[in-house]
Amino acid sequence: MAAIGAMPEINGLRQKSRRSFVTLILTFLTSSQSILIVWSKRAGKYEYSVTTANFLVEALKCSLSLAALIRIWRKDGVTDDNRLSTTWDEVKVYPIPAALYLVKNLLQYYIFAYVDAPGYQILKNLNIISTGILYQIILKRKLTEIQWAAFILLCAGCTTAQLNPSSDHVLQAPLQGWVMAIVMALLSGFAGVYTEAIIKKRPSRNINVQNFWLYVFGMIFNAFAIMTQDFDTVMNDGFFHGYSLITVLMILNHALSGIAVSMVMKYADNIVKVYSTSVAMLLTAVVSVFLFGFHLSLAFFLGSTVVSVAIYLHSTGKARR
Amino acid sequence: MAAIGAMPEINGLRQKSRRSFVTLILTFLTSSQSILIVWSKRAGKYEYSVTTANFLVEALKCSLSLAALIRIWRKDGVTDDNRLSTTWDEVKVYPIPAALYLVKNLLQYYIFAYVDAPGYQILKNLNIISTGILYQIILKRKLTEIQWAAFILLCAGCTTAQLNPSSDHVLQAPLQGWVMAIVMALLSGFAGVYTEAIIKKRPSRNINVQNFWLYVFGMIFNAFAIMTQDFDTVMNDGFFHGYSLITVLMILNHALSGIAVSMVMKYADNIVKVYSTSVAMLLTAVVSVFLFGFHLSLAFFLGSTVVSVAIYLHSTGKARR
Repeated sequence: MAAIGAMPEINGLRQKSRRSFVTLILTFLTSSQSILIVWSKRAGKYEYSVTTANFLVEALKCSLSLAALIRIWRKDGVTDDNRLSTTWDEVKVYPIPAALYLVKNLLQYYIFAYVDAPGYQILKNLNIISTGILYQIILKRKLTEIQWAAFILLCAGCTTAQLNPSSDHVLQAPLQGWVMAIVMALLSGFAGVYTEAIIKKRPSRNINVQNFWLYVFGMIFNAFAIMTQDFDTVMNDGFFHGYSLITVLMILNHALSGIAVSMVMKYADNIVKVYSTSVAMLLTAVVSVFLFGFHLSLAFFLGSTVVSVAIYLHSTGKARR
Repeated sequence: MAAIGAMPEINGLRQKSRRSFVTLILTFLTSSQSILIVWSKRAGKYEYSVTTANFLVEALKCSLSLAALIRIWRKDGVTDDNRLSTTWDEVKVYPIPAALYLVKNLLQYYIFAYVDAPGYQILKNLNIISTGILYQIILKRKLTEIQWAAFILLCAGCTTAQLNPSSDHVLQAPLQGWVMAIVMALLSGFAGVYTEAIIKKRPSRNINVQNFWLYVFGMIFNAFAIMTQDFDTVMNDGFFHGYSLITVLMILNHALSGIAVSMVMKYADNIVKVYSTSVAMLLTAVVSVFLFGFHLSLAFFLGSTVVSVAIYLHSTGKARR
């Protein structure tokens, strides 16, 4: 009887350690992703077309999910939870996140008419706030007041850590730039929260089935992006023009971190994802000091302090329920 | 019976509103103090000797306390609580804060050999942390964990709000500069906390008696400072050389805010004082936009956000005792 009584606790522990594990993996992958980007920039401009790389990322994720599924089918047999069901009712929700990201990526081309690149980096932190708001509205899970305070601090801290002498330009950005940034933040927040809603809707459903469908539509939408944006380049120079070792590593990294994001959505939530990517941003800066001889600014230390306090508050704020 | 039962609540309310009142006054005075400093700098360099002005501030505070006492003696008669007792046992503690401030001000001359003026502004925020630590150790009043988090945020937020392109120099400051800054922060934190301890030791003692003794020793120590630092200037050019309308306003303001600090120590505490002066710093910046056409930086907005969250957390963190 005692052993049975202890079961939920062991399950809780297992869930908690799985959640911590996927969160750590996501933090590590996101951080090394930024380092690869810096590395590729140092090695020279992007020479490959970004749309083909994005397509390959989706294709790779899709293949990995399918491979995992096949292994599971061989081991456990095909069950209701790991079957690749193709009913419209099941599949119809999966194109939505991919479509949202596509619209967001298209907007990204236009926002640079109003905001410069460092300004855009700053404005991207609005994602944190939009994710918090949409998480609460759509997933109907409540953050406590302390957790909200922590989330505002996370946004302020990340922005502070990224401050540089030209950041103030963003305050002079025209209204259109701000509106577009807010719309983009809402789109990307909505895509994230919607993905979590899909994945969590049937908790017993195998994550690889859910991922497979997400990534199939990712491939379709990215194929569309190649056609509209890079058709000529691909036709003239070939699909893999300009690819290098770094490009391959970046694709591999993006694919793995994409899967890690899904895992975090399944076993944790969007809030954990936002904290994880924020910590990754700080980690990247610290690692860049050693790798590329970057200097850390006072603003970085202040921002990191605020982010650390935010993480502490988020976990304390949870305790009282 | 019901009326008697309600008495402590009314007293509590009165205490709370008195606390809010002195805090608001302190915030207002500190903020206008900084504005006067900016104004006087714009009008030209300090031409008067700072030590004589400091002496006059102490003399004015002392006279105001004495005037208030005389009014009280006339109204209520001389009681045990408002008598100007001159026993050594009573008076011996009052020179200590004045002496600490003197040492701190002397150090201030030397720190500029290691740290530039904007860097010193940044390092002064260490006062916030030292006050928190000494408050807890010496006054033995515990801040909750959330309140500590809030205090760290207050420090980070104030520093962020003051960031400017040359702030990063402070990271290159030599060790001596940092050590001196920490010693100065500890001295000023200790002086503040010690003053609170003196004032709160006998809560029934009239605040004007306590202020009188504090300011008498303030006068004595500042007279000493005139002799050691500005003796020649005062002898050759006269005591009031270089005084202008702004100088007089600044002396008046310093005197009133000095008294407001004492009031805050009596009816609230050092923590409230630190919050109050931090908010004053932010207010000053906002008012300077209108008065002097200053621009607010993105760092200022981020810092203000963090300070606002800190204030919210400080008051929420208190509730759970």
